[in-house]
Amino acid sequence: MPKMKAVVKVKPVRGGAELQDVDIPTLGADEVLVRVQAASICGTDVHIYEWNAWADRRIGSVNLPQILGHEVAGEVVEIGSHVQNIKKGDYISSETHIFNPGDLQSLLGQRHIGKNMEILGVDRDGVFAEYVMLPERVCWVNDRSIPPEFASVQEPLGNGVYAVLGENADVAGKTMVIVGDGPTALFATGVARACGVAKIIVVGFSDYNLDIARKMGADHILDIKKTSLEERRDFVLQQTGGYGVDISLEMVGGETPIREAFTHLRKGGRITAFGVASEAQVPIDYNDSIVFKGAQIHGINGRKVFDTWYRMRGLLSGKRLDISPVVTHITALEEYEKGFDMLMANPRKTAKIVLFPDNAELKAAKERLAEKTDMPAAD
Amino acid sequence: MPKMKAVVKVKPVRGGAELQDVDIPTLGADEVLVRVQAASICGTDVHIYEWNAWADRRIGSVNLPQILGHEVAGEVVEIGSHVQNIKKGDYISSETHIFNPGDLQSLLGQRHIGKNMEILGVDRDGVFAEYVMLPERVCWVNDRSIPPEFASVQEPLGNGVYAVLGENADVAGKTMVIVGDGPTALFATGVARACGVAKIIVVGFSDYNLDIARKMGADHILDIKKTSLEERRDFVLQQTGGYGVDISLEMVGGETPIREAFTHLRKGGRITAFGVASEAQVPIDYNDSIVFKGAQIHGINGRKVFDTWYRMRGLLSGKRLDISPVVTHITALEEYEKGFDMLMANPRKTAKIVLFPDNAELKAAKERLAEKTDMPAAD
Amino acid sequence: MPKMKAVVKVKPVRGGAELQDVDIPTLGADEVLVRVQAASICGTDVHIYEWNAWADRRIGSVNLPQILGHEVAGEVVEIGSHVQNIKKGDYISSETHIFNPGDLQSLLGQRHIGKNMEILGVDRDGVFAEYVMLPERVCWVNDRSIPPEFASVQEPLGNGVYAVLGENADVAGKTMVIVGDGPTALFATGVARACGVAKIIVVGFSDYNLDIARKMGADHILDIKKTSLEERRDFVLQQTGGYGVDISLEMVGGETPIREAFTHLRKGGRITAFGVASEAQVPIDYNDSIVFKGAQIHGINGRKVFDTWYRMRGLLSGKRLDISPVVTHITALEEYEKGFDMLMANPRKTAKIVLFPDNAELKAAKERLAEKTDMPAAD
Amino acid sequence: MPKMKAVVKVKPVRGGAELQDVDIPTLGADEVLVRVQAASICGTDVHIYEWNAWADRRIGSVNLPQILGHEVAGEVVEIGSHVQNIKKGDYISSETHIFNPGDLQSLLGQRHIGKNMEILGVDRDGVFAEYVMLPERVCWVNDRSIPPEFASVQEPLGNGVYAVLGENADVAGKTMVIVGDGPTALFATGVARACGVAKIIVVGFSDYNLDIARKMGADHILDIKKTSLEERRDFVLQQTGGYGVDISLEMVGGETPIREAFTHLRKGGRITAFGVASEAQVPIDYNDSIVFKGAQIHGINGRKVFDTWYRMRGLLSGKRLDISPVVTHITALEEYEKGFDMLMANPRKTAKIVLFPDNAELKAAKERLAEKTDMPAAD
Repeated sequence: MPKMKAVVKVKPVRGGAELQDVDIPTLGADEVLVRVQAASICGTDVHIYEWNAWADRRIGSVNLPQILGHEVAGEVVEIGSHVQNIKKGDYISSETHIFNPGDLQSLLGQRHIGKNMEILGVDRDGVFAEYVMLPERVCWVNDRSIPPEFASVQEPLGNGVYAVLGENADVAGKTMVIVGDGPTALFATGVARACGVAKIIVVGFSDYNLDIARKMGADHILDIKKTSLEERRDFVLQQTGGYGVDISLEMVGGETPIREAFTHLRKGGRITAFGVASEAQVPIDYNDSIVFKGAQIHGINGRKVFDTWYRMRGLLSGKRLDISPVVTHITALEEYEKGFDMLMANPRKTAKIVLFPDNAELKAAKERLAEKTDMPAAD
Repeated sequence: MPKMKAVVKVKPVRGGAELQDVDIPTLGADEVLVRVQAASICGTDVHIYEWNAWADRRIGSVNLPQILGHEVAGEVVEIGSHVQNIKKGDYISSETHIFNPGDLQSLLGQRHIGKNMEILGVDRDGVFAEYVMLPERVCWVNDRSIPPEFASVQEPLGNGVYAVLGENADVAGKTMVIVGDGPTALFATGVARACGVAKIIVVGFSDYNLDIARKMGADHILDIKKTSLEERRDFVLQQTGGYGVDISLEMVGGETPIREAFTHLRKGGRITAFGVASEAQVPIDYNDSIVFKGAQIHGINGRKVFDTWYRMRGLLSGKRLDISPVVTHITALEEYEKGFDMLMANPRKTAKIVLFPDNAELKAAKERLAEKTDMPAAD
Repeated sequence: MPKMKAVVKVKPVRGGAELQDVDIPTLGADEVLVRVQAASICGTDVHIYEWNAWADRRIGSVNLPQILGHEVAGEVVEIGSHVQNIKKGDYISSETHIFNPGDLQSLLGQRHIGKNMEILGVDRDGVFAEYVMLPERVCWVNDRSIPPEFASVQEPLGNGVYAVLGENADVAGKTMVIVGDGPTALFATGVARACGVAKIIVVGFSDYNLDIARKMGADHILDIKKTSLEERRDFVLQQTGGYGVDISLEMVGGETPIREAFTHLRKGGRITAFGVASEAQVPIDYNDSIVFKGAQIHGINGRKVFDTWYRMRGLLSGKRLDISPVVTHITALEEYEKGFDMLMANPRKTAKIVLFPDNAELKAAKERLAEKTDMPAAD
Repeated sequence: MPKMKAVVKVKPVRGGAELQDVDIPTLGADEVLVRVQAASICGTDVHIYEWNAWADRRIGSVNLPQILGHEVAGEVVEIGSHVQNIKKGDYISSETHIFNPGDLQSLLGQRHIGKNMEILGVDRDGVFAEYVMLPERVCWVNDRSIPPEFASVQEPLGNGVYAVLGENADVAGKTMVIVGDGPTALFATGVARACGVAKIIVVGFSDYNLDIARKMGADHILDIKKTSLEERRDFVLQQTGGYGVDISLEMVGGETPIREAFTHLRKGGRITAFGVASEAQVPIDYNDSIVFKGAQIHGINGRKVFDTWYRMRGLLSGKRLDISPVVTHITALEEYEKGFDMLMANPRKTAKIVLFPDNAELKAAKERLAEKTDMPAAD
């Protein structure tokens, strides 16, 4: 049986994963085999790598060993006997939410939020490997003008697109606060700028990331280390004729940032609930924030399948959106430990890290990105 | 100066209001004088009557004495010099949210949720009187087929219409839970039934009101005195193929009913936040209820001005909606104390109480309602 | 090889089809075999039966012989090796638009209007038989409370649901004109009534059908044999405060009815374009009807897959919608010629005709429908 | 009585208008007096100037003499006794559609398309003068960062914004064809680019204007002088994976461009009907273009009041949209004849022409625009 390199979580213990030679997966009838060109690291991967309480509860020892990773770009090298639309040679990325087509939500056009769902890299082997097997129905054919290091991060970029556009994509000419400066918030900043949001105010705390937010098109940066909530509230009111913003994105999770996101929202505005709270119960100023404010809240989970992907392809291939400031580091798959270390460092000096199983691909990516003067040196 | 009868909150003390002879208001240029045909009592009126903490904070002694009431139907008897569209003789009801046309929200078509707003009967003299003066811009011309006792309660009925329809009016053929059995929830039940909601499950605790909910078209009644949340959850799941409802209306306010409303909602569903919580901070199961559920929350305050009124006029005049089961009592204005007593009783055995300043109008209403066998005798 | 009865168009010639014994289809891996309980006749079937110019161009001799019919209700008796969600014993109806899941439209949630599509009973063997083979992905599981004679006609009823609700399902409390009195228009009338349309005016010419329209809930009937366009326009204006209706459904096709549908629409209203015009080019009063009127036109083809089906299931199983007045005749499959004759008669004295391959099922249906006093005797 | 310069259509005859000294208008109670800083020429002004058949029918001799013009930016110098929100010193532009607040459409949030409406410069004196009197309710307060030459053209720019965004503002990441290269189409091109339309293909015939379209952000220019409809169709299909565009804007009017706009639209796409046809009746390929295509058509008239203005203010003041390539000429009010001559020339070598009543303002504008290397010299 042919083998491949893969980053595997072997045991349910804290700290680390192993680079192993494992079998190349055997193709199912509805699945395709993809040669991984690029795969990027997500916070979820860090949770599993670290094996924190969430990972222990969500995955458990039963499913180990398991290959990490779910953000990917690659080439289809083999197709199952029942595959109908994806072809050998297609350059694809994958939707992480492996939906069940028979779910009510899938039948109604909400595939991203179906009741029964498998998550790539969580419920089945992921993409930090030379090859990955994917159900045809979650494969998205990329435009070839989008290089692998960008195609791979479309999964979190899609979170940003959905968070910005919400359920109705009505953002043009409106004002927006983005609470958070993590990678998805940085992507959201660029998306908002590309889609005609007229004023973008980013609230964050990392000097490193807020600098990227500025490059992605933020009009104003509010650093929570240097300002109080009251000062930020007054600034936002002053910037919005005394009303607050039309749209507020909560991209951190937790009582304090949620309060902040509501604070900046005008009456009759829309708020995106994207950040996952660390608390089970979050106290919310329910009357003033929701009822009396007439707020519309859009809970955002995943990406619309494939509405979000379609728009994202257009924005990237049409050069409406340059995400290179967020793709801060690229490296070889074998160097995954360095990547995880950077993501677990405090303060963190990286946004998105992309891994390349193949050295020639890595070299080509380095050449492409070198053209950007603002690209930090990759390890 | 000509005088009129009016129910006046005279002093900032607990308990009661006085029936007084007061001056008929002097007409402003943009205002109309309305002869009150019917006026109905709202919970807000009870708060002011009782002079609870909210009333003391919100209104304060400075604004007293003030005439109570904001739900009204009447005839325009005089118009100000600048009035342009409303005519003498028009049969009108009034929007309670006296919006400022220059507010950003008003300019954008969200008059109901403007930043600067005066509330009828709270910030200025109300409708529990023989006459009331109203700005032209909040007058809504009623269809004459709608009798005063129904035209008057359109204000809370409009809450119900907006709560059911939400921002997008997309309800036809969907499933719904209504948490709450107060008058607005009872109206919402009828609206949901009239607008093609395919399955309506009402959760409440008052035998008296749940009986009305059944008359208004509820398919299933879940009594919280007799069932646990788990039992109700299982019932809703069983009724919805295991998914939960498409739309959940929270019409009580407070941690427990809010949790219930989220519990019954399916992934990707819509929830209406209408009930006002008694707590300043409500703990919410944020991740599971909003983010991972991909829920859309519509904070509902007031009624769309005048989109909601227009639809309501159609539903009532087209006989799509019969609200007579909710209009449980009608009486003379002078008997207002009995009405307030009934509304403050525990358990409460009334839903909507309509007051008539004129005895001939009251007599006519009694004759109209007598045709309904299910109409309880008015006191 | 086991045989079954089927109504087959054998040759590309005018007039008729044959009842034959043909092979029961061999099951494909992604398909299910359905025992037909009820199948109803559509205008498309009449075109093929008659073999008019459209049929000759659209189907051609190459695809003959072919079994007619696409409206169906039945029981799954066998499932292909790859079928995942549909189970043996499921009681299903079928979406006629056999979409390609890889089409852009399918990927974006518009499966009903995909670029590449096969039509049941047009591009492949249909349902006028004892058995039919259907791809799993177009099967819709019916609620068992919906009898086969109603479940079968859900396909055209779904046209009516989509035509009424349009793209956004925003109809509650609005006014509507329905131009047309064919079966789909009659269904639309009932749907409009069930979904809270506040005033429904049906324009038609068939005494037989307009009588059904009244039973389905039309508030006003305008007979084009007895009134001029100007008279109808004036009536609609008088019924709508001088504005015209909020929503106008064009369900006939052709210059005259299209003009009528636009005539009755108010400025800023929505029009549904459902009727298929007999002319290739239709002259339209473009400026006044569309541009200056600020009209929104929704071209309606098929039904939303499966959003429309889901709502329809709710409306039928929740008893919000009674379609029995439209199901005017039921008979045995062998009596198909009588059915086609009735549909080709002038004037036509039938709306929907349902065929039953099995006599016991037919007998049960007759018993169910006999309870309705307004059900004409089936031939 | 104080006098002012004004460009007046004096008699109902072909050709020209006169520069006259006329009375400064006497202020109404609900109106404001505006000192005109900049006023731009629209095609409608040309129709009145020329006194073509439309002008003769629409305006008639009864309303002459009348001051031309409706696109304006200026300063409020006096306010009527009833004015409530607009203040002396405000820097405003004016909505041309002087809506009636009592119209059903106005009550429902569709002020731009009300039944009863007065048009500035058509039904009452316009803005080609030193002063103009405007009803408070159509005044829109500009952001001071927007110079008068841009603030003035917001009226047609607003047409472009509404045409691009349609009823739902859902354009981000989608593909678009714009049929037409007149000033509004050029504005639309810039708006589409600013709002994240991923691919913009402009179809036109004027070398001069298509060059501006490129500067405004068109990805592809299709010149109808050099290509056939079939070639353009094939190009669009090739650019859209064989489907056609998501959104097609018809901004010319007439059978040929309407056919073109439909030709390029994909199944299930949205089309904007903005162009006014010269024919009363336009033959449309109704079945294939609307019904079978499942097209959504948005008839666009005017601008949303004030939703469009609000977004436009954001796009301009946020520097998301640079309209300087479209503002091709600026000159003194007295030079209006040169402007009209340029607009009536064939071929036309101008897009938008802005007139300045005050020389100091003109001088300042020339300095601002001189910074743009691509600004043609103003006459």
